[in-house]
Amino acid sequence: MTAASVVNRRIVLNSRPHGAPNASNFCLEETAVPTPGPGQVLLRTLFLSLDPYMRARISDKPSYAAPVALGEVMVGGTVSRVVASNHTGYEVGQLVLGESGWQDYALSDGSNLMSMAGIDHPSHALSVLGMPGFTAWHGLLKIGQPKAGETVVVAAASGPVGAVVGQIAKLQGAKVVGIAGGADKCQHVRQDLGFDLCLDRRDPQWAEQLKAACPNGIDVYYENVGGEVFDAVLPLLNVGARVPLCGIVAHYNDTELAAGPDRTVALLSQLLFKRIRLQGFIIGDHYQDDHATFLREMSEWVAQGKVKLREDIVEGLENAPAAFAGMLEGKNFGKVVVRIAE
Amino acid sequence: MTAASVVNRRIVLNSRPHGAPNASNFCLEETAVPTPGPGQVLLRTLFLSLDPYMRARISDKPSYAAPVALGEVMVGGTVSRVVASNHTGYEVGQLVLGESGWQDYALSDGSNLMSMAGIDHPSHALSVLGMPGFTAWHGLLKIGQPKAGETVVVAAASGPVGAVVGQIAKLQGAKVVGIAGGADKCQHVRQDLGFDLCLDRRDPQWAEQLKAACPNGIDVYYENVGGEVFDAVLPLLNVGARVPLCGIVAHYNDTELAAGPDRTVALLSQLLFKRIRLQGFIIGDHYQDDHATFLREMSEWVAQGKVKLREDIVEGLENAPAAFAGMLEGKNFGKVVVRIAE
Repeated sequence: MTAASVVNRRIVLNSRPHGAPNASNFCLEETAVPTPGPGQVLLRTLFLSLDPYMRARISDKPSYAAPVALGEVMVGGTVSRVVASNHTGYEVGQLVLGESGWQDYALSDGSNLMSMAGIDHPSHALSVLGMPGFTAWHGLLKIGQPKAGETVVVAAASGPVGAVVGQIAKLQGAKVVGIAGGADKCQHVRQDLGFDLCLDRRDPQWAEQLKAACPNGIDVYYENVGGEVFDAVLPLLNVGARVPLCGIVAHYNDTELAAGPDRTVALLSQLLFKRIRLQGFIIGDHYQDDHATFLREMSEWVAQGKVKLREDIVEGLENAPAAFAGMLEGKNFGKVVVRIAE
Repeated sequence: MTAASVVNRRIVLNSRPHGAPNASNFCLEETAVPTPGPGQVLLRTLFLSLDPYMRARISDKPSYAAPVALGEVMVGGTVSRVVASNHTGYEVGQLVLGESGWQDYALSDGSNLMSMAGIDHPSHALSVLGMPGFTAWHGLLKIGQPKAGETVVVAAASGPVGAVVGQIAKLQGAKVVGIAGGADKCQHVRQDLGFDLCLDRRDPQWAEQLKAACPNGIDVYYENVGGEVFDAVLPLLNVGARVPLCGIVAHYNDTELAAGPDRTVALLSQLLFKRIRLQGFIIGDHYQDDHATFLREMSEWVAQGKVKLREDIVEGLENAPAAFAGMLEGKNFGKVVVRIAE
């Protein structure tokens, strides 16, 4: 271990945001690098993934997992190098996929580590071949089940989940319409990712354009944003449509419910009359059943150039809080990955 | 044909209700009994089914089917006797299940008729072995998929769908909690139908009682009412819960959306965090795939006394409008069937 690495920098939760998070909600601390005990490895973080689900984890509202406690290191998926090992399964120098969180170093007993076998680019393990790619693959194929000729609509289409959803849907023979924020993102989605169309959510006419873009209605809406996109999509859904629901990022910073009327009943009516399946899922539930199949299939597609995912690389752990806040506002362009060390 | 049957009484839609329907929305007309043409049969209606879906069919709001036009005969499932036949597949005297609607006589070319084979009691073809029973069976087993030991909650538990849902869920080994309006209905649901519990929705404490009755949460909520029952159930749903949605009868008479706040996002959050599957269905979609299996399985259960359904028999076609309006307010006790002729 070099001198430079004696300190472990870590970002802890300083306060719970009310609305949009900002830098003051986080605190950069320096502590001693921990020493691995028997059966443990010491991991040096190389890449940290920033993802919208983290907004739910720093709220104390009921959610699918316990919140990060104040003063605790922020959670997050990481690619790390083993720098010391008392574990027979891991060698110094080996790369692993883990959950070290927002810090330079972490200990692990191996139980939360996954192999990087078959992953050529380390950051891919956090993007197209990682959790976001798996979220896209599972939600679209297992819940959305698009058929050739059907129309699939994807919001946040240049984001890590949406981008992969659309490309997989194209591989199934569907017509794919993306929605993204800004002309540059829309161009990327059409030209680089091969969606049939991409509408700019900043265009005041985008909802009318969506209707015109889907003359046969919408068969699958992959829901990861909520808000006005959901409102525009709902009346266009076809009988028998499927709506996999993996996030509602437009609402993660909400501090209260929107004003009335209460449209819950209108939503239920649509689901009933159109026989729609609306199904929430949390990808963490599906690693045991599905992950090996995903990795095999997606690795092939990536190797063949059939699925691509732009990465938005942020340099330095200290920039994670600002990058996280920006991501929730859609300022990222592709999958946000923080490069922490080489 | 006897002299008494020369007139065809029929009930037509006179005006669209704003809110709850009443007698003035319907009109009893007398016309000549029609004469069957080539390939047609003349049917004498014996029993007419009254069902909540009819409320949607007399509204011009978007729905899953075109509305009944003003001046048109009200739609409805019927058991009829063939009284004249120019169709080689039907003999005079034979009973058939059809869609004659709210009238004494109707013609059919056979394309909308189903056999009554295996149905001992004619009214059963409209209740436990008919559309409501099929709705219960399909929604519970194909979407709800209760497992032994799980908790199933059913609203309108003494009604034709709820009563059958609960009994099938018991046969799957689930714990079944019903909700019904009134002590007499609750007693029937517990004692005659064998639910584990039934809560009286008229008791101001019923929502607290529901929570106490479901210490392990709710795994399947069979949704056919909406309203305050849905609100009370939602926070009790478990991770991975399934919500088959076949109706929201509490809202069919609504004239506008409820006041705010808009709780749509709160609903989506629950569906996401708890990985809930909420799926609307219209039973008419499933006859081809599923109906034969349903009829075989349910006939056995009925014959063995494992599934029962109380019928609320209304005497006389002229009483159909008032019975229909009462049903939407929960005044019926069991499946509403109008006896029109012997």
